[in-house]
Amino acid sequence: MKKIYLDYASTAPVDRRVIKAMSSFLGENFGNTMSLHYFGQESKIALEQSRNTVSAFINAQPNEIIFTGSATESNNTVLKGIAFANKEKGNHIIISSIEHPCINESAKWLEKQGFKITQIGVDRYGMVNATDIRNAITDKTVLVSVMHVSNEIGTIQPIGEIGAICRERGIYFHTDASQSFGKIPIDVKKMKIDLLTASSHKVYGPKGAGLLFVREGIKMDPLLHGGGQENGKRSSTVNIPAIVGFAKAVEICKKEMRSENARLAKLQKKLIKNLLKVKNSGLNGHPGERIANNVNLWFAFTEGESLVMQLDMYGIACSTGSACSSMTLEPSHVLIATGLRPEQAHGSLRISMGRWTKEKEIDYLLKILPKIIKRIREISPFKEEAFV
Amino acid sequence: MKKIYLDYASTAPVDRRVIKAMSSFLGENFGNTMSLHYFGQESKIALEQSRNTVSAFINAQPNEIIFTGSATESNNTVLKGIAFANKEKGNHIIISSIEHPCINESAKWLEKQGFKITQIGVDRYGMVNATDIRNAITDKTVLVSVMHVSNEIGTIQPIGEIGAICRERGIYFHTDASQSFGKIPIDVKKMKIDLLTASSHKVYGPKGAGLLFVREGIKMDPLLHGGGQENGKRSSTVNIPAIVGFAKAVEICKKEMRSENARLAKLQKKLIKNLLKVKNSGLNGHPGERIANNVNLWFAFTEGESLVMQLDMYGIACSTGSACSSMTLEPSHVLIATGLRPEQAHGSLRISMGRWTKEKEIDYLLKILPKIIKRIREISPFKEEAFV
Repeated sequence: MKKIYLDYASTAPVDRRVIKAMSSFLGENFGNTMSLHYFGQESKIALEQSRNTVSAFINAQPNEIIFTGSATESNNTVLKGIAFANKEKGNHIIISSIEHPCINESAKWLEKQGFKITQIGVDRYGMVNATDIRNAITDKTVLVSVMHVSNEIGTIQPIGEIGAICRERGIYFHTDASQSFGKIPIDVKKMKIDLLTASSHKVYGPKGAGLLFVREGIKMDPLLHGGGQENGKRSSTVNIPAIVGFAKAVEICKKEMRSENARLAKLQKKLIKNLLKVKNSGLNGHPGERIANNVNLWFAFTEGESLVMQLDMYGIACSTGSACSSMTLEPSHVLIATGLRPEQAHGSLRISMGRWTKEKEIDYLLKILPKIIKRIREISPFKEEAFV
Repeated sequence: MKKIYLDYASTAPVDRRVIKAMSSFLGENFGNTMSLHYFGQESKIALEQSRNTVSAFINAQPNEIIFTGSATESNNTVLKGIAFANKEKGNHIIISSIEHPCINESAKWLEKQGFKITQIGVDRYGMVNATDIRNAITDKTVLVSVMHVSNEIGTIQPIGEIGAICRERGIYFHTDASQSFGKIPIDVKKMKIDLLTASSHKVYGPKGAGLLFVREGIKMDPLLHGGGQENGKRSSTVNIPAIVGFAKAVEICKKEMRSENARLAKLQKKLIKNLLKVKNSGLNGHPGERIANNVNLWFAFTEGESLVMQLDMYGIACSTGSACSSMTLEPSHVLIATGLRPEQAHGSLRISMGRWTKEKEIDYLLKILPKIIKRIREISPFKEEAFV
């Protein structure tokens, strides 16, 4: 059976053009960027070329890009690194209530160390109100972190507005752009972003590379101390094959982003329109301010896990909420934050599309999924009246 | 010109057998281990098989292995994670004076946060005396961290002895085994190791994978908070291609370690014997308790950087001290710790061999290096009598 992958928000295959770009660095060009000899210098050149590509893509300077191992590492670096480096200024951090666990859990750990965290709620579409951020800022606030696009429900946040407020107040602004980078335009100068996280494997690059944009002059402790790589901001032997692959992936996104977005938006529209025909269902996330590859719906009297498992038997790979929380039985904190009742949150399904998603795959899903929902509801122990 | 690589302690090429094992995971088997569907489960299986391979290699249980992104990440995790998780017990950490910068710099950062660090000196061979560790332990000590083999001078430390002392006193014992793992046998039970760091790219695996052995029951905070991967101990999308490659690299080391060690020991002996014929030279590190792939010598009236650059012009890649400190002009802290005068430390050269080092390459080096030293000394501004 041909498998259909609709979980691109979780991870994506590496583009063949990327693997090709990486291959010599897995082989003969293996040098350590810190070495003075030929092998080291070859790697160093590849590193700086990659940095140029990636920095230009978001309108940053090359010296403002730190390559990390993942978006999780970038996010941990920001929260902990800013908190510890700016202790004299203040101990207060503002995040949204729908951040990825790598932000939430870092924040919880910082609370244990004596820092104060404020979580800003969202509306029913998962949208943060910039005014709420403004109101939460105190004279102890050192950092505001709001994700650009929700990994679960696809809502695009008003990053430029939040950035402007933070810049005005002289407070560092970070955005986790793991789900937007490579998909919609980002300009760190226009959007007044001080720190930005992105991931390679979400944009058809290899796993093992992430980036952290750190605007010049920002005071931040490293998360990884050591040999002084990445200008002392992130030590560890530089993973050149992964970084070269990441840069190649960015190059491809730059060329194909606009047309790809339009293509996916059509499939998204078709999916949402047809799945909302299922009774007792609803769209999670914003209907308009939404990334084109994300579809997330709730289906009352179902369980997301069952939907995922049944779809898997038909060769279709989807997700409930984010992959990172799929092992827990807790309802998604993001869906709960939008005001969904736990039963609705539990019956939610995320369909995330990507570069190799074809219309016939969407048509197949539209044929199969309503049948699965019907079958699950027939055996559901819940009574319809309990929900409506 | 055919290049000769003699900087294996810095990084190594990926073995072709490893690239072959990784290839399907860069391609069609790209799933996220946290996903419930087919793609996720395939990755999960590969992850647990890799964990089994690696844990068996050091006589650990699979649930005691955390895959990280690098040895630097593992070492940062240990120092910071143990310090923060055991604050009620104590705030004192003991390290040796010849640790890698990722230990030293993590320790310095912890000092800023109020923790106390004791550095234990070494003898002229770079050897830690276990009794010194015993004497440095206080009732506030929570961790002792001593590297297994020096990355610069190759000295093998009495890890079993130190482990026994720590176990007796109920103090966690960590060893950075980046330079020994895959080269000499490690048994975490026999050696009474509680925490151990190893790296993939030093054993012909890919960059982007490291491991941290954490004995069951050890209290340690994560360095990377987030989605709960690696049993909650190291979050971040699991880098399956790198981990599968790492495990394959371990499999190969397991088979070839003994014969490879014997082969390299012969080349090492030849190198040391012949290079000591150069006047005003000396061996850095222990003559006997030494890893087989490491040769490190000082040549008075030379500069390590010049040696490396000149050798590079002959197509030979070597290093001064460790790659991580090659960008600084500071003399190696490791060589200084052994009592070498700064001028001697400055004129030191590390030759590190590996899987593809051939005797004829060593012979070529032995032909070229004495000539280079002679030439450098001829133009050296230093007077011989200043040193002898």
